[in-house]
Order: sequence, then C-alpha cells, then structure tokens
Amino acid sequence: MKNGNVIVGQSGGPTSVINSSLAGVYKAAVNNGAGAVYGMRHGVQGLLGGGCVDLADYITSELDVELLRRTPASFLGSCRHKLPEITAGEDKYEKIFDNLKKLDIKYFFYIGGNDSMDTIKKLSDFAKQKNHDVVFMGVPKTIDNDLAVTDHTPGFGSAAKYIASSLKELIRDSYAYDQRMATVVEIMGRNAGWLTASAALSKTEDCDGPDLIFVPEIPFDLDTLVKKIEGCGKKSVVIAVSEGLKSADGQYVCELRSRVSYTDSFGHKALSGTAQFLSDFLANETGCKTRSVEFSTLQRSAAHMASRTDNEEAFLTGGAAVRAAFNGETAKMIIMLRTSDDPYHVTAESCDIAQIANIEKKIPREWLDADGTGVTKEFITYCKPLIQGEINPVMVDGLPRHLRLI
Amino acid sequence: MKNGNVIVGQSGGPTSVINSSLAGVYKAAVNNGAGAVYGMRHGVQGLLGGGCVDLADYITSELDVELLRRTPASFLGSCRHKLPEITAGEDKYEKIFDNLKKLDIKYFFYIGGNDSMDTIKKLSDFAKQKNHDVVFMGVPKTIDNDLAVTDHTPGFGSAAKYIASSLKELIRDSYAYDQRMATVVEIMGRNAGWLTASAALSKTEDCDGPDLIFVPEIPFDLDTLVKKIEGCGKKSVVIAVSEGLKSADGQYVCELRSRVSYTDSFGHKALSGTAQFLSDFLANETGCKTRSVEFSTLQRSAAHMASRTDNEEAFLTGGAAVRAAFNGETAKMIIMLRTSDDPYHVTAESCDIAQIANIEKKIPREWLDADGTGVTKEFITYCKPLIQGEINPVMVDGLPRHLRLI
Repeated sequence: MKNGNVIVGQSGGPTSVINSSLAGVYKAAVNNGAGAVYGMRHGVQGLLGGGCVDLADYITSELDVELLRRTPASFLGSCRHKLPEITAGEDKYEKIFDNLKKLDIKYFFYIGGNDSMDTIKKLSDFAKQKNHDVVFMGVPKTIDNDLAVTDHTPGFGSAAKYIASSLKELIRDSYAYDQRMATVVEIMGRNAGWLTASAALSKTEDCDGPDLIFVPEIPFDLDTLVKKIEGCGKKSVVIAVSEGLKSADGQYVCELRSRVSYTDSFGHKALSGTAQFLSDFLANETGCKTRSVEFSTLQRSAAHMASRTDNEEAFLTGGAAVRAAFNGETAKMIIMLRTSDDPYHVTAESCDIAQIANIEKKIPREWLDADGTGVTKEFITYCKPLIQGEINPVMVDGLPRHLRLI
Repeated sequence: MKNGNVIVGQSGGPTSVINSSLAGVYKAAVNNGAGAVYGMRHGVQGLLGGGCVDLADYITSELDVELLRRTPASFLGSCRHKLPEITAGEDKYEKIFDNLKKLDIKYFFYIGGNDSMDTIKKLSDFAKQKNHDVVFMGVPKTIDNDLAVTDHTPGFGSAAKYIASSLKELIRDSYAYDQRMATVVEIMGRNAGWLTASAALSKTEDCDGPDLIFVPEIPFDLDTLVKKIEGCGKKSVVIAVSEGLKSADGQYVCELRSRVSYTDSFGHKALSGTAQFLSDFLANETGCKTRSVEFSTLQRSAAHMASRTDNEEAFLTGGAAVRAAFNGETAKMIIMLRTSDDPYHVTAESCDIAQIANIEKKIPREWLDADGTGVTKEFITYCKPLIQGEINPVMVDGLPRHLRLI
C-alpha cells in the first residue's frame, strides 16, 4: 500500500527525547508505505520560506536512528512562531498550503507543546474551511508536562530523571562543609510545578531530598520562605524553586530582580533568575552562606541521563501519530492514558486538538502537601514510573555522540 | 605484618572522584595490614573536636567500596580550615597531635588540593620539630588541576568529561532556534583555566565546540569579547568563560556585578556570576538574545558522568600514598608522571610536599592559541586521555545510588 508524502516539524523548547519522537514518526512513516518524509527546518518557518529537508538524506541507517533517539535539542531546528488567527492572516496560511502542495504533502505532523498544538488546530481548521485534504496530527512534547488530557508528556520523564539525579549529587555536595548554608535550585516548568515537584523523587534511602519545594501553583511569599527554612532545623537546607514562582499579586519572583528580559511571540517571558534573587535575599536576610543553582538548559538537553521509559514513549507516540493519520484521523494529538501504576502501563490514543491547544495543566492541589511546600505520595506514585530505565549514550572518545543536521 | 593505625581526611572543594581516593586509601591500608582506619569528619576539624569515625563501620562490603567510588562530594565531610603558622598557634597543633595520640595514629593521609597540602606541610614540619613519629602523606584532589609537579590531578578528568559532554548537549540546544543568540557558559577553576579550556574537547565530528574560550591566564577585556563574537560570523555563538576571569587591572569580572560575596578562611573569594554579568552586558551591547549557564556545583559532583580513567587514578593515588607511607616516606604528596600520551600511561611517584603546597599551576601560554581565545592541539593531546572511559552509576529505581555517612 502506498501512502502519500509526509512532513514533520518540531516546535517550542527542545527536550532530551524530542528526536525520539521524530525517529518514531520517520520509522512508522517509512514502515507504513509513506512516500517521501520531509522535515521542516525550524517548524512552520520552514514552510514559510525557511526550507525543508528530505529526512532520508540524513537518516541513512539503523545506527542513525539510534543516534537520533539519543540526540538532544530539535534535530530539525525549532521555532516559537505563533500563527495569526485565520481571519487576520489568510495569506500566511495560503503560503503554507502552497508549499505543502508543492511537496505533495498528505500528512503533517508537529511535535510540540500546547503552543504548537495551537498551530495544529489553526492549520486543520483552515484545511477544513478550504477543503484541503492534508491531515494534521500533533505529537506531544514538553518537559513542562502541562498538556491537557494526556497522562503526561514525552520529555517530562527525562527532565525529571535528570533533575532528581543531579539533585542527589548536589545534596551530597551541600553537606560537605560543616556550616550553615541554603542552596536554592531553580527548575523550569513555566507556570506549572510538575518539574519542580519532581525534585522530590531524589528523596531515597540514601538522600534526604530537597527540604522545601516551591511551585507556581501556590502563591509565593518571602516571609514564609524564611520561616520554613528556620523550621527545617538543619544546618544545610536545599530548596527547589520553580522559575515561574509568583507572589500573591501575580508578579513573577524573578522579576523582583531587575534583569534584561526577553518575551517570545506567544507572549511568554523568559523566566530565570528566581534562584539568584532568592539566594541573594536569603544571604542578606539570614547572614548564612547561600548558593544558587540553575539547571537551566541542561534539564531539557541532558540526553545522557534520559529515561528509557520516556524515550520509548516519545518514539511510540510519534509512531502512533503516523498510524492514526494513515487511518484517516486529523486535527488530533496523541495522548497517553495510564491503565496501571504498578506495573506501569499506558496506552496511546488520539484526542481532538481543540481539547488541548492553549490549555495549561497544573498539579492537582491534593498532590501537594497541606503547607504546599512538598508533595504527597500520590504525586510520587504518578511520577516514579516515568524516570525508570536508562538509554545509554553512544560514547565516542569519551563523549556522547549525536546526529546533527548541520 | 602489622602496621599502625591510619587516619584519613578530605579537605577543600569536593570532586566526583574524591571518594574513590578515600576508597583507595582504605583498601590499601586494610590490604597492607593497617590497624584501625579512621576518618576525620570535616578534615582537620575532626581532630580539633569535630570527631572521627572508624571506617570499618561504614564500609562493610565490596559493594560499599563500589558505591563509595561512585559517590560524589566528600564522604567524610570537608573543610576549608587554614592552620596558623606553627609559631603563631602551637596550642592548635598540640591539640591535633594529642588527638592523634589518643587514636594511636601512625599514618595520616589528607586528600585535597594545594591549600590542603599546606596543612600536610605544616603538620609534618611540626612533627619533625617535636619528634613525633606520625607519617604525613598528601593525596592530590582538585577539579581545578592547578597542583604543581603532578601531570594532572584526580577530579579534573571527570569534571572535564562532564563539561565537554554537557557542552555538546547545550550547543545542540543553542542551535535549535533560527535567531541570533549568545550563550555564555561559566566554568570553575579559580585562577587557572584548565577546566574552562577543557570545554574545547567538545569540538568533535558532530559538534563545533565553543566558539570562544576565555581563561584567567589571559587578561579579559569586554571590547575584545564583543569584537570576537562579531568575528565568529555565526548566528548562535557559545562562549566558555572561567569564573576567575580578571581584567588587566586585576579585578575579577564577576565582581563587576554587585553581589553578596563570600570569602573562605584561605582568603579565596566565592567566584560566580561571571556568565550572568557577561550575558547581561552582551544583551545590552548587541541587542541579541543571550543566555547564561553556570555549571556551578554540578561540574564537581556529577559522578554519573565520571571518567573511568580519572576514577581509577583517584583510587590508585590513594593506594600509592598508603604504600609510600608504609615504606616510611613522609611529608610528601603522590604525583602522576606521564610516560606516554598514546597509548596513555602514567606512573605514581611521591614528591616533597614543599614543592607543591600553596603553588598554583597555570596553563602554559603555548597551549593557548595566538589570540588566547582557544587551545592548541598540544592541550587536546594532554587533556583527551583524561576523560576516557565510563564508570556507570549503580542505578536503583531510576536514580544513581550513593554511599552516605550521615
């Protein structure tokens, strides 16, 4: 059976396993009789003039597939390009569909988060209005784990595993000196606390874990921070804070510090500096030594510490998107539904894109403890299966090897 | 043959493999007929009243030895305690030697950097003056690689491997978006550029490596930075900078930014904030997006990415110190002498402590390129063998397992 041509793009912030989803789309497309499989350079920017590549030129062996699955950051390049409302920018849509037509594309896959699903929604709406027969499918991706409907998102598990592992190492280090110290560790996740809360996974037989966790779901207050630290009764405390912490009046904590700021086309501010601000504040307030650590880009790119579970799910959701599209589904995203915690089991389904685009899923209040500075065992039960298993990097001359496009 | 009791301490900033040296001391002592093997809690502070432990209570199996070798940060706790000149604080020395006598110690091992070797020197000088028969041996340790005489120091290779690996991942990420961006990555090393220069190892078939490297051996200048970035002619540039960068007038770049500062008992300032300062400066100066990344404590505690070569050398130098001491040597540190680059081979020797204590070894000028913003192939030939091989963490429930004392 011969299917039509396929195009795939990657959008938004990269993850350690976003290329495993790309590999999943590619392999499933090839295995299911697709024509050419194109990749958009930098997401929809590629269709607006930035160019596309034929993936067969770059993935030439099974070894390349394995390397691609272990390569962090978006292999095809990414973008944060917000499409206008259809009524406000029809010419842009026409250009995209013209370019899809030139490549004779029948299937369009977009690997991304809730902003990227907005793109899928708009393009599929436009296709419906204009009777284009291109099929649009979303493949979930975000370390933030803030997509609606799906149990979790590919990318989250690997970031959580990196965070919990690195935090175990940092906590060891924070006990090295016999002195009062507060270590403030800043974790990504934008307005959702999933990743920051995953710091709690580092609490194990051989590690106390972070002493306090502050997530954006709970309004943040400096006095509470100081009181809580005193309440720990420990010489060296480690505090996990979300980059997206906000005070009760809605101001980002990182904005309390004057700093060059950057806002993307979706209107999202570049959030960072929370740990630095709090570390300086605590040093002034308490007189003790403080240290700030930002996991920064490392938490989304540390493919060497990826979760095998996550990497496989990323691959599988890519493949599931292809199979659903080839079966005629459109305007959907693949979601994972959990059927069991232990043994852990999920199934991949598809879900209407309108239920997902532009919605942020937060941590349920009941998965945080009464004080809001820790998690409950329900959160741990949810999170732990997602970090299981390792996918060892291919080491060449002492360093992880990646597959690069340019 | 029965040897006397042994005591071992760890001092200064931890590394990923400092506990492998501890394991090396412990195993060699036990295997060579030592009496009890004690550990000082927090270095010489343990002998000044902080307490000591019997290591046999904590290392009870071969599995414990393996876990200890994979555990970052100082298992026994560390300190930055500078002993006074002997003439200025004889009572402190008497107290230390009283406590050594109570434990019937014959052999004293100290795992540390050049500050810690100052401690070994002073204690062995005092022992000589007072005719104490305790033997003092230093075991080299520092990610900074700034110890004199020895070819390199245990701890450096693992930090270099972590930096080069993580940088490869960060560089992938920095190319994700099709936009002008400068990423400034801050690397430790105090006043020596070894670690920052090791960023150059990330230049491989599949990675451009950092575009510019700034080490403290070369006076730093903001105008040069801007010109050099323009000269790269790339949209996204990645710049590795040392925490210890200084301008021509001797001021630390990180001090150009007002910030809570911390100075330890050796008079060393807590250096960090260089990347943040430069990132903010470049954003203002060039208008392009900038990002700052500090590897911070991660680079000295990421045992999950340790170099097997480094871990084995850390273990071996610990053992070599015991054998030298049991052979009657004192007031020495174990050094590594390189006999061949390829195949790589080193031998462990001992060297008078007076040739090492308080001396900082810098990168030879001829190992940096003419501009001083990159390294020569001599540096790569020197550095590459040190990051070879992996020592996989023992993974339990998705996370690296460590051995903890408390």
